[in-house]
Amino acid sequence: MIDYRSDNTGRAAPQILEALVQANQGTALGYGGDDWTAALQRRFSELFETSVRVFPVATGTAANALALATLGPSWGIVYCSEVAHINTSEANATGFFGGGIKLAPIGGEHGKVSADLLAETLAGTSPAQLHRGKPAAVSLTQATDLGAVYRLDEIRAITEVAAHHGLRLHMDGARFANAVARLGCSPAELTWRSGIDIMSFGATKNGGALCDAIIVFSPDLADSLAVQLRRAGQVWSKMRFASAQLIAYVENGLWLEMAGASNKMAARIAAGLREIPAARLLAPVEANEIFLQLPSSAMDALEVDGFQFYRRSKTLARFVCRFDATEVEGDALLTALRSHLGTARASDAAE
Amino acid sequence: MIDYRSDNTGRAAPQILEALVQANQGTALGYGGDDWTAALQRRFSELFETSVRVFPVATGTAANALALATLGPSWGIVYCSEVAHINTSEANATGFFGGGIKLAPIGGEHGKVSADLLAETLAGTSPAQLHRGKPAAVSLTQATDLGAVYRLDEIRAITEVAAHHGLRLHMDGARFANAVARLGCSPAELTWRSGIDIMSFGATKNGGALCDAIIVFSPDLADSLAVQLRRAGQVWSKMRFASAQLIAYVENGLWLEMAGASNKMAARIAAGLREIPAARLLAPVEANEIFLQLPSSAMDALEVDGFQFYRRSKTLARFVCRFDATEVEGDALLTALRSHLGTARASDAAE
Amino acid sequence: MIDYRSDNTGRAAPQILEALVQANQGTALGYGGDDWTAALQRRFSELFETSVRVFPVATGTAANALALATLGPSWGIVYCSEVAHINTSEANATGFFGGGIKLAPIGGEHGKVSADLLAETLAGTSPAQLHRGKPAAVSLTQATDLGAVYRLDEIRAITEVAAHHGLRLHMDGARFANAVARLGCSPAELTWRSGIDIMSFGATKNGGALCDAIIVFSPDLADSLAVQLRRAGQVWSKMRFASAQLIAYVENGLWLEMAGASNKMAARIAAGLREIPAARLLAPVEANEIFLQLPSSAMDALEVDGFQFYRRSKTLARFVCRFDATEVEGDALLTALRSHLGTARASDAAE
Amino acid sequence: MIDYRSDNTGRAAPQILEALVQANQGTALGYGGDDWTAALQRRFSELFETSVRVFPVATGTAANALALATLGPSWGIVYCSEVAHINTSEANATGFFGGGIKLAPIGGEHGKVSADLLAETLAGTSPAQLHRGKPAAVSLTQATDLGAVYRLDEIRAITEVAAHHGLRLHMDGARFANAVARLGCSPAELTWRSGIDIMSFGATKNGGALCDAIIVFSPDLADSLAVQLRRAGQVWSKMRFASAQLIAYVENGLWLEMAGASNKMAARIAAGLREIPAARLLAPVEANEIFLQLPSSAMDALEVDGFQFYRRSKTLARFVCRFDATEVEGDALLTALRSHLGTARASDAAE
Repeated sequence: MIDYRSDNTGRAAPQILEALVQANQGTALGYGGDDWTAALQRRFSELFETSVRVFPVATGTAANALALATLGPSWGIVYCSEVAHINTSEANATGFFGGGIKLAPIGGEHGKVSADLLAETLAGTSPAQLHRGKPAAVSLTQATDLGAVYRLDEIRAITEVAAHHGLRLHMDGARFANAVARLGCSPAELTWRSGIDIMSFGATKNGGALCDAIIVFSPDLADSLAVQLRRAGQVWSKMRFASAQLIAYVENGLWLEMAGASNKMAARIAAGLREIPAARLLAPVEANEIFLQLPSSAMDALEVDGFQFYRRSKTLARFVCRFDATEVEGDALLTALRSHLGTARASDAAE
Repeated sequence: MIDYRSDNTGRAAPQILEALVQANQGTALGYGGDDWTAALQRRFSELFETSVRVFPVATGTAANALALATLGPSWGIVYCSEVAHINTSEANATGFFGGGIKLAPIGGEHGKVSADLLAETLAGTSPAQLHRGKPAAVSLTQATDLGAVYRLDEIRAITEVAAHHGLRLHMDGARFANAVARLGCSPAELTWRSGIDIMSFGATKNGGALCDAIIVFSPDLADSLAVQLRRAGQVWSKMRFASAQLIAYVENGLWLEMAGASNKMAARIAAGLREIPAARLLAPVEANEIFLQLPSSAMDALEVDGFQFYRRSKTLARFVCRFDATEVEGDALLTALRSHLGTARASDAAE
Repeated sequence: MIDYRSDNTGRAAPQILEALVQANQGTALGYGGDDWTAALQRRFSELFETSVRVFPVATGTAANALALATLGPSWGIVYCSEVAHINTSEANATGFFGGGIKLAPIGGEHGKVSADLLAETLAGTSPAQLHRGKPAAVSLTQATDLGAVYRLDEIRAITEVAAHHGLRLHMDGARFANAVARLGCSPAELTWRSGIDIMSFGATKNGGALCDAIIVFSPDLADSLAVQLRRAGQVWSKMRFASAQLIAYVENGLWLEMAGASNKMAARIAAGLREIPAARLLAPVEANEIFLQLPSSAMDALEVDGFQFYRRSKTLARFVCRFDATEVEGDALLTALRSHLGTARASDAAE
Repeated sequence: MIDYRSDNTGRAAPQILEALVQANQGTALGYGGDDWTAALQRRFSELFETSVRVFPVATGTAANALALATLGPSWGIVYCSEVAHINTSEANATGFFGGGIKLAPIGGEHGKVSADLLAETLAGTSPAQLHRGKPAAVSLTQATDLGAVYRLDEIRAITEVAAHHGLRLHMDGARFANAVARLGCSPAELTWRSGIDIMSFGATKNGGALCDAIIVFSPDLADSLAVQLRRAGQVWSKMRFASAQLIAYVENGLWLEMAGASNKMAARIAAGLREIPAARLLAPVEANEIFLQLPSSAMDALEVDGFQFYRRSKTLARFVCRFDATEVEGDALLTALRSHLGTARASDAAE
């Protein structure tokens, strides 16, 4: 079996678990009053070149929903891509934690929000329209849910529009490491220097184990977030074991090393796909995910071959590369696809 | 420094972290579709002598609030002790996750709910009284928030009253291990055989690291809980790392060994206190917590001596024994108390 | 000034206010325990040819949101038209009262939900997909928010699809009277006999004053609705004054008489529009609303003439006929439109 | 039958219904954009001697819950009397509309909050205690739920304590008219001049029909309240019919005239009770409610005589005087009580 199901089916980086084990010494004040959590604040403030507040949480869903709840009011509207994870895959956690916050999809390519379409939508709103709720925030998924990556100028175009209307900015960075590795920008450039107020900082999908984090760039948001996290049951009493994981995750560039490896594997496969005429990608492969339009028969055949992956529809398959995927696994997928698609044309995969 | 602040300031049992590290092999389906989580279901079903559903969660607050939300409706009333953790220390997580569920305190001794007072309260309610909300559930903290332990007959008296009025039963077992170790009953007797529908199963305070669990005894509750947990961001994608911790926690009786050790240390201190006339306990020491009425001056002196503990009020101190507390530490506390209280009478500590 | 802004800018039927005044005799038990409210149950059960529960509420937003909350769970998905009032104009009341319920738009013509597109969407869902929430209900607006009316077979096609997937059915009948008047079906046929579980029964827009109602056809929904209404502050203590209005509203066919009058006026205008080549309707005029694509200049000119109406966009105007609108007013609008559009072609109004 | 059940079983003042009927002229912009609602703002601003915002709502529960939700955050704590209507009789509407707001009872006499006990409770809180939620507001019921009235100095003592801790003040004025009539203070003195930020202004219990109101004294609260009311389905589209009622309610002192009448009747009965040794009042009769400790047998006998009233417990009866109660009715009650209690001593009524 070769597993392309998700980056969360994979192992954790051994360094992260080793750090967790090393944190098991002596006693430490609970709920984040420990030395590891203090060090985490310093370490991430260095990484982001500004003073940030970092709150470890159990999952990306918690990070997204609670970050967005902080940007509310409860009658707020959060704009996002139609295919954003918050809109499709979190059981409306944002609506729940936000006390009724509504997600409003904005069009765009490859899982991105289009700055122009956002501007058009916002131009049609007015504070006097109580019956419409209040435009409150924009959420960008970086890398996107279709495996593309926002360029710096794309982010800035959106944050400008949002700022003009008094909206705040959230970044869902479940695969932020992949985006940073792809673009080579600094984490600061990709976030607060481009107008992001708060972000969900993913680790789990990129070699982490049991925690992600919320990073607060706009200090006014931190205090209300802290109490909401406590109420949400997202504040571990033995926080040191979470903070130690996150410190290890960024130590010596581990996070970018792992994201670089999974990006590279996806790029290798994408390069191979260019030589298979019948292989049609839904979006450019810029991170570690490949969305490939395939006939059902080809998907069946891949499964017989022992490949694991998700069928997003009858004609769409998703392949995700983990940080520890090997070239052998990548090449095996290409060989199999070549074999099953060799004589087909791209149009055969169309719905 | 000798740390009596809380059982959550302590280390994790090395066996638990070792199990977490051992789980880092191969790929595994996410969100609980892995082998470790399947094994967890089997292992806990054996432990509880019935088929249970086990849902690992990040914290005890999450366990309590989501278990109680499942017992709703959102206009439900949950009866509990005035001093219950859910009522005093979880930022009203139950009200939040329950969409407006209301906690209603019932009197009783030593942090317990009194079956008689519960019966009296319920006798005054009627389904036709829409304006009062709907009595929905009772939550019992075992061991209690004042360090006492419900006896089996006390639990059964309460569950009988509750069942008579159609209420369901939750147990907050943040220190369930301490209660089991104290009473010598089976986990089954203390829970579903005594009418408990769902429980918060604590591990963190007793040598755990990053997870507790909800255990569902009444199968009708499990499906709606599953989706609420997902929405709450309490379902780790790499669930194996949580499930492995919980399996190790109960393996070879580790949990009861640790709880027995912390109980024993608390009992040793309580025994010593009986020889100090001025030392007055707020509740019997039946688990690993000691609530001691002390003059402020004695608390000051203890701190100068290097003891760490919580001041619950100007005249009430709480000392918690961890699983790895040593006799030397316990005897040191007694020596210090003897020295600071030697000539005082109990009445000096009264408020 | 001639007012086409909305049917809620109009007067109430004198009969309705007279009934309210007549109810001001003697004392009566509060919160619906009075004779008028009992009579209301009987009267509406006759009208709908089945035993219904009727709950007067202050507004249509309350009726919609609380009816849909009753069809939850809070992690439910409610399917509706993109332009449904619940989706565009109620400040996400459904998400709020539903504790996080999510509205999901389904395509269709003229403000209708398409049975085929609903079927397609539901085919892609599975109960195991906890992360997607739970398909829970469909809401149909009758008449639609674009002034069209669902035919009986259209409703039945939708309720069949919904029932097949275990979903329940809500009808937003803010303009139900207009739909009944248009189709000539019985209220029973248009609702429970076609699979509707619960409806918002509008009166305000059709000559009512201060109340609409929720009508429950599926008895299992009524008890939880009753307590939710109480909690929502939607149960008047002097309920007789609301119930008396609703009884008068349907007495002697008043409601259908008024709806017939406003429909007729809209039809008269629509007929006149057919003779103006440049007048392009967004949807067929089947109730009392006219959505007309107009150049901005024509809208400006109408306002100068003294007509009041809403601009839905730069090229879309809405005209609503009230029950007491006169033919003189209708003809005046046609004359003005003829004058301002006389030489234009329809294409000039396109955006 | 003589009805002492509640002030909401009674009629409305004819002047109020007459005003409603008079408002039925011409067309008027919806949702409060009409002339009546504008006049209401001016009229109440005069009445309260400051610029206020007035929002008509359907019920007192809506007024209370939405006013308190505005004082949130959702993790806030609202302090009130144990017997406050918001705590006992609104199905936890405050917890619901407040997204989890928690009510915390404070002791005091006769349904009042004690300033001293409030100060003591607040002294034990600290902003760093995230797990306790955030003290947010105090709610005072004027007149109280036991028929007493806060004196001006009592209110000010409480608002001083609250202000010192940054809490905001709500007044539940379901029977505000009775309190004003009793004390002879100006409405301004009893509210914003004594530190009240927002109030529920009751009309229904004192001769109103279908609306109460929220009055905002602190302008920063009004905008978020406006959208929350819209979302709550508490904004009538034909608002003129509500605003006209409230204008008539205060016109020419009607409200105080009616409250004076019901107060006077209660006082007449209370005076008579002083001559019946066995009659024991639970609280001083300062408004229009009488809480009388009675043996069950006496309550049975009163019912046989044709008196209607509420049994609050086996030994406590509540009698409420309506604005249109007559002296004959009052004297009949006294005669009956004298007859049934004539030979008993007060102690017989004790529980």
